[in-house]
Amino acid sequence: MGTVRVGLIGLGTVGSGVVEIFSRHREQFRTRAGVDVELTRVCDRDEARFAALGLPAEACTADWRAIAEADDIDVVIELIGGTGIAREVVLAALAAGKSVVTANKALLASNGEEVMEAAAASGVDIMFEASVGGGIPIIGPLKHSLTGNEIASVYGIVNGTTNYMLTRMADDGLDYATALAEAQAKGFAEADPTADVDGLDAAAKIAILASIAFNSRVIFPQVPAEGIRDITPADIEYAAEMGYSIKLLAIARRVSGGIDVRVHPTMIPTSHPLASVNGVYNAIYVVGDAVGETMFFGEGAGSLPAASAVAGDVIEVARHIGSGSLGATGCTCTEHLRVREIGELETSYYIRMLVADRPGVLATTAKVFGDHGVSLASVIQKAASSDAAELVYVTHRACEAEVRAALAEFDALEVVREVAAVIRVQEL
Amino acid sequence: MGTVRVGLIGLGTVGSGVVEIFSRHREQFRTRAGVDVELTRVCDRDEARFAALGLPAEACTADWRAIAEADDIDVVIELIGGTGIAREVVLAALAAGKSVVTANKALLASNGEEVMEAAAASGVDIMFEASVGGGIPIIGPLKHSLTGNEIASVYGIVNGTTNYMLTRMADDGLDYATALAEAQAKGFAEADPTADVDGLDAAAKIAILASIAFNSRVIFPQVPAEGIRDITPADIEYAAEMGYSIKLLAIARRVSGGIDVRVHPTMIPTSHPLASVNGVYNAIYVVGDAVGETMFFGEGAGSLPAASAVAGDVIEVARHIGSGSLGATGCTCTEHLRVREIGELETSYYIRMLVADRPGVLATTAKVFGDHGVSLASVIQKAASSDAAELVYVTHRACEAEVRAALAEFDALEVVREVAAVIRVQEL
Repeated sequence: MGTVRVGLIGLGTVGSGVVEIFSRHREQFRTRAGVDVELTRVCDRDEARFAALGLPAEACTADWRAIAEADDIDVVIELIGGTGIAREVVLAALAAGKSVVTANKALLASNGEEVMEAAAASGVDIMFEASVGGGIPIIGPLKHSLTGNEIASVYGIVNGTTNYMLTRMADDGLDYATALAEAQAKGFAEADPTADVDGLDAAAKIAILASIAFNSRVIFPQVPAEGIRDITPADIEYAAEMGYSIKLLAIARRVSGGIDVRVHPTMIPTSHPLASVNGVYNAIYVVGDAVGETMFFGEGAGSLPAASAVAGDVIEVARHIGSGSLGATGCTCTEHLRVREIGELETSYYIRMLVADRPGVLATTAKVFGDHGVSLASVIQKAASSDAAELVYVTHRACEAEVRAALAEFDALEVVREVAAVIRVQEL
Repeated sequence: MGTVRVGLIGLGTVGSGVVEIFSRHREQFRTRAGVDVELTRVCDRDEARFAALGLPAEACTADWRAIAEADDIDVVIELIGGTGIAREVVLAALAAGKSVVTANKALLASNGEEVMEAAAASGVDIMFEASVGGGIPIIGPLKHSLTGNEIASVYGIVNGTTNYMLTRMADDGLDYATALAEAQAKGFAEADPTADVDGLDAAAKIAILASIAFNSRVIFPQVPAEGIRDITPADIEYAAEMGYSIKLLAIARRVSGGIDVRVHPTMIPTSHPLASVNGVYNAIYVVGDAVGETMFFGEGAGSLPAASAVAGDVIEVARHIGSGSLGATGCTCTEHLRVREIGELETSYYIRMLVADRPGVLATTAKVFGDHGVSLASVIQKAASSDAAELVYVTHRACEAEVRAALAEFDALEVVREVAAVIRVQEL
């Protein structure tokens, strides 16, 4: 059993978890997995982290090239994140003939093709289980156990921050701002929460999952993303009354003429297993033509869960080195499916609006929907103040472009004071 | 890309699903997975099945040796089941240098070591994802994505028949006999339901999962199994009142001095994700020291789900043939952990008994528990008839041997008419 020499670049949250796992379990990896994996060198710009993690000075460097281009490194773990220096590191390591393990969702979702091609050119592995769903095995199962299937759809709760916030809003009636402040205080949300609450993090992740599930490259800019900033306790309550939960859902579906990929707050039936995924937990629901419905559930973030995925990938690469099969499972994007525009979407919509409490308002607003061919499934009218009423419409399946045209007309209608919420409904 | 020639032995429920998947997706396996997998020959004793599945006569045989020992077969799929002829087939195929894919839980749970050693001796693959949880990827993730973890415990709902019956009993108040008759009418239970309702099927599956999770061979006879024959709607109702659901749980835990493996009806907190796994669905809950809590959910039986797992394994073997890495991930049972006796178990117990409605009965029965060091958490007393009462005790954590000794004393107590139910409680 030869020793596989690993270099780790980036000693942040996930990186420190990786250090912990390797110091805790190296001996077990030898006996149980049949690989001897040595954490040979680590790199971080913040040299104070070396001592904090108890790493010997001679194994530490602030220069990533001393890992990515070093002769005595077989596998590079990239945990810098982003598409700047991280991209340089990954491409340099692959060009130098090293396999790469990364948790970098942004890089895979934006530069996946470039990275996969570089790995193929060098005949090495590029693995990224930690980029989606933290420690949850999902990329491995999609690329291996489920390959006998034609995947029909993937529905993911892949952002723990927003799922925590929505859970607190649903269970305890918190408003958005309070839920966000609490998530920040607990370390579940960043000081700048944009990537999470605007759905960008989830968009990168579903781009990766869609690419694998449908064997066709989907990149981050192709994924329309809406976040949860506008979700209110009122909408969550209306949803509950109607038998729905609101989740920030990352959706990828095989549809006629291509694929439908998107991220937005979504009403899903409360009885569906995804509706019970609460707090910071993540889950990915996969429907295949043979396997039927499956779900993968677990901790979507955090130091050790993400490090678990990284360690699993490193051991896998080490096994491939041992069996001389590096690079055997490379890019699987062999098709070129069209990514549908959001305007082509057909689904149901929940629309809540504040209107003047005046005779004929219900008829006026309902007519706008009818004029655009949007058929209505239900309506609730409630008094909102002395001179205003709240109207909650749920449509039958309708075309997004037509719904948007109707919404634009409401803007111009004097009796409609505000369209307060538009939330898509997904029957799963 | 060389053609990988596959022989399939056993055209029952799963076998016909495999035939369907290969005829539906062979071209996609070529383009997407990079393997050309040909179903070269099939075998069944019932030759009528060949025509029913539209198989060409020249590809069909009633002689398994024409597949297991044939020169023109690379991979043998064994779907006969059991430990008789199936064992012969698998060992013959492995000895002939063919990789084997099987759904045979009984064989793996009873003869796992023999089979793994035969595969290693020939340097080929033996894969068995379909043996546990139908189409749910669980063996793959345990052997790959989760290898960075020390697994602490595995809790599985791995028998769809009993989960369907318990769901119907809980949701609609059916009694055991009615639930069984309905499951049989729907094809979810066999005419002889023993393997399912007595927990034997689940015991074989948890033996396999425990062996992989703890890197230590556990065989079927080591797994104490109790089934659901004695579960009544009354117990399910009491459980619900106390915040528990009753599931037939397959349990494997790393404990001080070894491993604890068992199958029995179990009260679990209703809020736990496993409690929401209903009907014929299966789920496996895995706790690791890095990944934390994960759950794998899906259809645990049925033709296409199980065939999905078989197809995934066959594609994996084909990839290994392509990359020259057959046999790289073999047996991982490198340790020899002691399997604990059930008497050593420490857990909480729910005990329901019918007693004479007479002064002092509560004190008398409570004293028996106290005499054996079994501490009580709660008691409910209800009138059962004009001269009998029902006592429902829930104990604190207690030693199984002591609880059994107490139960034996109740048998001899004249005031105790019947110990109607003993159900273990598992806080997850």
